[in-house]
Amino acid sequence: MCSQEGEGYSLLKEYANGFMVSQVLFAACELGVFELLAEALEPLDSAAVSSHLGSSPQGTELLLNTCVSLKLLQADVRGGKAVYANTELASTYLVRGSPRSQRDMLLYAGRTAYVCWRHLAEAVREGRNQYLKAFGIPSEELFSAIYRSEDERLQFMQGLQDVWRLEGATVLAAFDLSPFPLICDLGGYFIKVDSLTLSRLWVPPKSGGCHSPHSLAGGSGALAKACVSLYPGCRAIVFDIPGVVQIAKRHFSASEDERISFHEGDFFKDALPEADLYILARVLHDWTDAKCSHLLQRVYRACRTGGGILVIESLLDTDGRGPLTTLLYSLNMLVQTEGRERTPAEYRALLGPAGFRDVRCRRTGGTYDAVLARK
Amino acid sequence: MCSQEGEGYSLLKEYANGFMVSQVLFAACELGVFELLAEALEPLDSAAVSSHLGSSPQGTELLLNTCVSLKLLQADVRGGKAVYANTELASTYLVRGSPRSQRDMLLYAGRTAYVCWRHLAEAVREGRNQYLKAFGIPSEELFSAIYRSEDERLQFMQGLQDVWRLEGATVLAAFDLSPFPLICDLGGYFIKVDSLTLSRLWVPPKSGGCHSPHSLAGGSGALAKACVSLYPGCRAIVFDIPGVVQIAKRHFSASEDERISFHEGDFFKDALPEADLYILARVLHDWTDAKCSHLLQRVYRACRTGGGILVIESLLDTDGRGPLTTLLYSLNMLVQTEGRERTPAEYRALLGPAGFRDVRCRRTGGTYDAVLARK
Repeated sequence: MCSQEGEGYSLLKEYANGFMVSQVLFAACELGVFELLAEALEPLDSAAVSSHLGSSPQGTELLLNTCVSLKLLQADVRGGKAVYANTELASTYLVRGSPRSQRDMLLYAGRTAYVCWRHLAEAVREGRNQYLKAFGIPSEELFSAIYRSEDERLQFMQGLQDVWRLEGATVLAAFDLSPFPLICDLGGYFIKVDSLTLSRLWVPPKSGGCHSPHSLAGGSGALAKACVSLYPGCRAIVFDIPGVVQIAKRHFSASEDERISFHEGDFFKDALPEADLYILARVLHDWTDAKCSHLLQRVYRACRTGGGILVIESLLDTDGRGPLTTLLYSLNMLVQTEGRERTPAEYRALLGPAGFRDVRCRRTGGTYDAVLARK
Repeated sequence: MCSQEGEGYSLLKEYANGFMVSQVLFAACELGVFELLAEALEPLDSAAVSSHLGSSPQGTELLLNTCVSLKLLQADVRGGKAVYANTELASTYLVRGSPRSQRDMLLYAGRTAYVCWRHLAEAVREGRNQYLKAFGIPSEELFSAIYRSEDERLQFMQGLQDVWRLEGATVLAAFDLSPFPLICDLGGYFIKVDSLTLSRLWVPPKSGGCHSPHSLAGGSGALAKACVSLYPGCRAIVFDIPGVVQIAKRHFSASEDERISFHEGDFFKDALPEADLYILARVLHDWTDAKCSHLLQRVYRACRTGGGILVIESLLDTDGRGPLTTLLYSLNMLVQTEGRERTPAEYRALLGPAGFRDVRCRRTGGTYDAVLARK
């Protein structure tokens, strides 16, 4: 940046301004900029955008120009006036309803993660999450922060859906899963579950059970969908707590895929359905080693002989000092949960004592990697 | 990041994770990681760092490893254990007391700006700053947010000191200022001033006046110091409100430079000292066009014939759609003040009607640029 200073100074300013860049992205999503421009018949000028969104003229123009500088929007000049349109990046990843949209994950990051990260220094000092400081909720109600409203919960579920819709196929293709005819996806939704949260989230169904096949098209459901699509011979069970299934039934569009069924329960307590393969996608990273071991032992007992377990997580390098994204996610776990990201050796150290053998780790080159082990 | 997705997706994740990178930097500064490693006789392992800082072992190790990934620290393996030391980047810019340290500016960004930016979407919607939402202070006390304690105020003053110590010389060398023997630096400290704030900040001096020469070594003082160092023939007056001068006298180390004197007052109301050149460094960007015009007219009247004005700001490109850093700073003004960054044409449109002529704009290649105009 500064001609008098070197690369180090540029890097430092880039780091220091990183939160501003994130918020430009989050705010543009929050305000609906990308949907407006996607629906418009032609590029719009700043005044038109401001008028449609009900936002201040000066603030809107500045936000649009910053989005141009970040390649989220493109500007053309028509009749001496700048008009704005989505770039391909925005059309693909930011417009609500686009097949690859990451909008809900970004909104969740802006509304929740950003607020918790304000307290990173305290999280490092104390070694625990910062929901209490971030949301002012007394510690006995700690978990209600992330589920503090059904909207918040939905936002999080939709965010996970964004991720698996985009990255699910890559990670499920890391190993050939066709030898496993019945696959059980164990509750990928939940960062934390306690009875308080459950009672708040769960609205008793009007009709009877909810074991009938329906697609969640999100969270665990999205992964199961990717699974049966990639391995047409397999069936998938999505195992999750009743609250999730109920919310999913109310809010997500259901498609009719008879190969996917739902099973309600708490994977720390209730009987697990028998299956050939259990998928734990972004589950272990939420929990302490002790709780992971407890869960893995339960999975081992339920697993058919010759079956296996597929752990989907972002793997740290062997020395624990990379990749950067995984380190940031691990700090995110520190700030928001009681878990962390782990190295391949750390996953081996959890899987082995639980009884699993032939542990194999595969990096996908994407955000999430795969660890397969056999019973 | 994801092998299945293109560059656009990588860019998006970089933007989305930007706030995490900022917070890693802020938290490491906040916890004193860089000072500890600078003072240690040899590289320290994670347990030693954690023990010295009183921070959690797991959180500390994770933070240190993330700093390595960001090139803020370097790790070596000794006896099978990782030990950590500052990189040159950290030694130069992050250690407290280093001549080029940016630590105070970073702490200010993490503690204050980060919190305000949480509300960027609302700032764009409403077209005004977000101190009320960010700090829960009623609107009639809006300005007390940024000055909510003397510590906060000091932090901000020290932050400005960091910037001018590093970038002051570059921007003052953009034009030859040697024809101006008496230079008046008009209150670069203050984002906003009102009587409420003043009464809170200002502690009456025990001794008499404070017009005697002393170096502030910070904020306006730092710029004045750079000025007399670059132009040995000139004298500098730092004009600022009494509260600032008093705080400066109590907290900053004073050096004896007889060429720098201080003058107390409010540049919107009180008589300005006669001078050959007035410097307005990061002042106009805090204010509305109307208030800028009012201030510029006052400066014009006070200015000696043949004198001039030097406006130091980060200049937007002619089309207002770059550079990115300036756009982000302009959004920062939206979120925190009532001003914005401007294009050269917009500064001309303010300076011309106030009476100034021969307006010349020079980009320095650094963060801050220079606009010189003559009476």
